[in-house]
Amino acid sequence: MPDSPRFSAEVVSVGTELLLGQIVDTHAATAARVLAQAGIGCQRRSTVGDNFERIVGVLKEALSRADVVIAIGGLGPTQDDLTRDAIAAALGDELVIDPAMETKLRDIFERRKLPWQESILRQAQRPESAELIENPNGTAPGLHCRKNGKTVIALPGPKMEFEPMMQGPALAILERLSGSQVIHSHILRICGLGESTVEQMLLDLMEGTNPTVAPYAQPAEVHLRVTASAASKEAAEAIIEPVAAEIKSRLGSAVYGINSTTLEEAMITEMSERGLTVATAESMTAGLVAARLTSVPGSSKVFGGGVLPYSVAAKEALLGLDRAKLAEEGPVSPWAAIQLAKSVRQKLGTSFGVGVVGNAGPTVDVDNKPVGYVCIAIDSESGTEAEELQYRGSREQIRFRACQQALVMLREEVLKVKVNKA
Amino acid sequence: MPDSPRFSAEVVSVGTELLLGQIVDTHAATAARVLAQAGIGCQRRSTVGDNFERIVGVLKEALSRADVVIAIGGLGPTQDDLTRDAIAAALGDELVIDPAMETKLRDIFERRKLPWQESILRQAQRPESAELIENPNGTAPGLHCRKNGKTVIALPGPKMEFEPMMQGPALAILERLSGSQVIHSHILRICGLGESTVEQMLLDLMEGTNPTVAPYAQPAEVHLRVTASAASKEAAEAIIEPVAAEIKSRLGSAVYGINSTTLEEAMITEMSERGLTVATAESMTAGLVAARLTSVPGSSKVFGGGVLPYSVAAKEALLGLDRAKLAEEGPVSPWAAIQLAKSVRQKLGTSFGVGVVGNAGPTVDVDNKPVGYVCIAIDSESGTEAEELQYRGSREQIRFRACQQALVMLREEVLKVKVNKA
Repeated sequence: MPDSPRFSAEVVSVGTELLLGQIVDTHAATAARVLAQAGIGCQRRSTVGDNFERIVGVLKEALSRADVVIAIGGLGPTQDDLTRDAIAAALGDELVIDPAMETKLRDIFERRKLPWQESILRQAQRPESAELIENPNGTAPGLHCRKNGKTVIALPGPKMEFEPMMQGPALAILERLSGSQVIHSHILRICGLGESTVEQMLLDLMEGTNPTVAPYAQPAEVHLRVTASAASKEAAEAIIEPVAAEIKSRLGSAVYGINSTTLEEAMITEMSERGLTVATAESMTAGLVAARLTSVPGSSKVFGGGVLPYSVAAKEALLGLDRAKLAEEGPVSPWAAIQLAKSVRQKLGTSFGVGVVGNAGPTVDVDNKPVGYVCIAIDSESGTEAEELQYRGSREQIRFRACQQALVMLREEVLKVKVNKA
Repeated sequence: MPDSPRFSAEVVSVGTELLLGQIVDTHAATAARVLAQAGIGCQRRSTVGDNFERIVGVLKEALSRADVVIAIGGLGPTQDDLTRDAIAAALGDELVIDPAMETKLRDIFERRKLPWQESILRQAQRPESAELIENPNGTAPGLHCRKNGKTVIALPGPKMEFEPMMQGPALAILERLSGSQVIHSHILRICGLGESTVEQMLLDLMEGTNPTVAPYAQPAEVHLRVTASAASKEAAEAIIEPVAAEIKSRLGSAVYGINSTTLEEAMITEMSERGLTVATAESMTAGLVAARLTSVPGSSKVFGGGVLPYSVAAKEALLGLDRAKLAEEGPVSPWAAIQLAKSVRQKLGTSFGVGVVGNAGPTVDVDNKPVGYVCIAIDSESGTEAEELQYRGSREQIRFRACQQALVMLREEVLKVKVNKA
């Protein structure tokens, strides 16, 4: 953090479920990171339950100390969503109905054929001094209030709504406000290498102070955060750039993406550039690989389709695998994975076929193979690659790691194909 | 939260890394759960950086409002570990060296052959009114201060040290203090009804104070928290039970589970009990439905397998759909969803077939259907149910909602089948 930022901020999280400890407050950390990105120091965070007087009290105290208050949660339509009313009370504002928002809400409910209730109108209310912040993923808009030199930004609590609003419009408001020193990061996303290996390869770079280089382990991946402090985002980028380039030259294609790019997004781009297609036959992961690939817009040009031959009967019915041979080799075997990859590729006429079999647990009932045993095969016109793996962990972890490894193996084969620039 | 527990508490987390959002504060949630377990209401949580004046300020404010203050972090030997000094200042105490602790520290350093530094002695300091709380996993002890009717418990920040100390000696102190009133919750999980509808159906119950009933929206579901305060967990259960029963009788089968049960877990149980099986043909959701069902241990008895006919060619190759008819009706149409459901059920010989088609966006390129348009069909021997839906939101949200709705529709059909108790 740069010294003595010109503006100070506090974050107020609202929700009894937070005070009861039923939910861990990850939003407050997100808000703090966005404040840092805008060069605004966060000096205190507070959490308060769904109680009107206490919310007003916390907001008034925060406004007495800080220039900016970020309020999270309590903007929904129900009786215990009190943040909107509390902000109005803390600022000495009246609540008014926003006519454009009312029309929008009525439209949504009509289109979805949901019954209208007067309580829904609460989401069209705002303190007089507030502008609404659009919520692309939900009905409750955010609030941006400016009064007596203070700024209050209120955002709804659901994760899918809060995060894009905090990282988009709220960040823009904060950056305009601070107009000063920024703390800026790039995240380099790495697959197929463990955290210790990455650390060993970058020890000298991790000793720097501007930019700093810090790894953090994500499920089955490593992310490296390269952070610089400078007068502008552009100046920070100029500090980050040579270090990021050095990291990429050391780690090679293991660096699959930057910032929010996911492995599946990187792969859809890499396959599209090469005009390649893929089909999947997933037994153990039962759709995880396909669902990740198709989460990416434009994946319909790359993903041909797939089968989920969960049972032995389905392996026969969907892909025509020979039941006697399957019994001999075992439905959880390298042979089975290879057959799945080959036959789904043939059936759908794609460049690659992916086959995944395994035992995700919790019991050793599948083919007498130990829990965590996984076979993955990638088939293409240049041959078939297969791997046997043994994972530890919960059913969810084993399935996720198998899915990740299938993508990593597919990517290795994809990158062997040259980009054909027409 | 139920009214007026006999003691109120606040949690104060200390650490600049928390304010920067570099760490998510899971300890505050642990502390809140332990307080609830001891029957002490947590009314506010605050987070403050490693700054002496600000820590003293936060502690004084918390002590002015609450009977008990839990302070987390900042008890180590380094210069920026300021919590010990700040508590002494907030209570108006002198810091004294605890001779037994000094001996213990010197022993530890001698045994481990570590060089002694005078700064280490900071960990033997305590405010006059404090007793030390033993730390079995580290050198810094915790503090238990009682002064002017107020209690301050301070625990070190490292997870391995904090958690056992919070759940062991700190819980014991809190239980002694409160005479072990407990706060206990059940969560009722609801699918297929919106938050406002649920609220309208339960308005009178939501006015109660013991237990309290509060809804919170989860992605495409509603969760209701029913919380009671009583002398024991059993007594709290007895207060919750009749209200939970009344809610279930009003909402019927929309209440699919209690506490941590997921919709897919409930469905696998409901289908297993009835000896039913299902196969899926997912175009737009491309494996999401199958992956959720198979995330549940034991799902292999229920899930027969599936196909992911993402492209028109795959709809023909995998399920034998007639290409001319498909072109006529459209690959994103109720007809297509019904054909997928019927043919996958036939192919895999299951009780139910699920078909999902739609346009998840972001562009209107599939069959000229608007982004968010989804058709879902459920086929069984008693006929086929199909629905057309129009969702808003991101690609991820549209796919998730379609997946959720497919499970809700499947569940409706499953629950029509009577449980066959052999």
